[in-house]
Amino acid sequence: MSEQAATRGERKERTRRALLDGTLALAADRGFAALSLREIARTAGIVPTAFYRHFASLDDLGATLVDDGVTALRLALRDVRRNADASLSDTVRFVFEQVRPERELFSFLSRERHGGSAALRTAIALELQLIVRELVADLSRISALDSWSPPDLEIAADLLVATVTDGIAAYVSAAPREQSAIVDRTVRQMRLIALGMGAWSPPKQR
Amino acid sequence: MSEQAATRGERKERTRRALLDGTLALAADRGFAALSLREIARTAGIVPTAFYRHFASLDDLGATLVDDGVTALRLALRDVRRNADASLSDTVRFVFEQVRPERELFSFLSRERHGGSAALRTAIALELQLIVRELVADLSRISALDSWSPPDLEIAADLLVATVTDGIAAYVSAAPREQSAIVDRTVRQMRLIALGMGAWSPPKQR
Repeated sequence: MSEQAATRGERKERTRRALLDGTLALAADRGFAALSLREIARTAGIVPTAFYRHFASLDDLGATLVDDGVTALRLALRDVRRNADASLSDTVRFVFEQVRPERELFSFLSRERHGGSAALRTAIALELQLIVRELVADLSRISALDSWSPPDLEIAADLLVATVTDGIAAYVSAAPREQSAIVDRTVRQMRLIALGMGAWSPPKQR
Repeated sequence: MSEQAATRGERKERTRRALLDGTLALAADRGFAALSLREIARTAGIVPTAFYRHFASLDDLGATLVDDGVTALRLALRDVRRNADASLSDTVRFVFEQVRPERELFSFLSRERHGGSAALRTAIALELQLIVRELVADLSRISALDSWSPPDLEIAADLLVATVTDGIAAYVSAAPREQSAIVDRTVRQMRLIALGMGAWSPPKQR
């Protein structure tokens, strides 16, 4: 690749990044559903028609933000789980370490999870559902949970994922000095649920 | 009171109701933060200045919707708890019975909990915090939980309230045929947490 081409590629990547960052900044006030392609283009210093060199549509841009946040987190969690020594507490702390440098992005995703754009709500819900499913697969390999039915495992996995999701929403909207207390609280809530899972199906244990 | 006065009172109440309902309808698309007093007044067929006969401000109208939803639910829960026979499962089902006829209101509150209006977010968070506190007071009277510290009780109460809150958000946005499965799932998640609470502090139990 010639140096000129590399520069063009870099410039394109910068503009793409500016469109994503501009969207996060604008959506913080009014929500994604209220934004126009025109004003997002303006934050990146490009004309509206040039937007389509980077994204097929506003929904495509929204889906990219979901990928950058939830999908990236889901794939990172796969790596953590390959390390069999990782405790529940380690895993939860790992999640918050991924969220910390991306506060604006996860703040956006936490809001848009219940926000005005149906396309974005659906994209976020689908990714969270994938995380629940991968967690169900993990849980089904734990011998202590052998007697659990898949629907029961899904109910527990859904609760675990919802608890971390709520923890993230609280974390990104909290003052910095309150953040470590939110991580600790989330870790303890996860432990409480894990204890409940250990105590589940009492008829079998007696 | 003369009959004419009663009619005036009724008419005033109808307009007030129309302002609240109009806000719910408009906010479903764009969120509360994006609404203007002028367009809300229009949905009730009144001029903007007449709005102030009913509410001191848009935030005051928002606070009224929080009262109608979360506060009403909190007070109704107090009555349930006075009945010592009410099981966890009964209590959760009771909550969903209160939510069912007010789907539009709880849909609004679920969204605005993470929405663009800081005043509304704060009002909802404060009411949820009151529910957590009242639950902590209840839990502290359960003798099996005598060894729990107040911060531990608050962590558990926060998890229980968050689980029902998430259940409500899923319930109001689900298709009618999926709603009873969401209630069942929430009941089982609450039981799982209660089991975890029973198994907490293992050093004391051995």
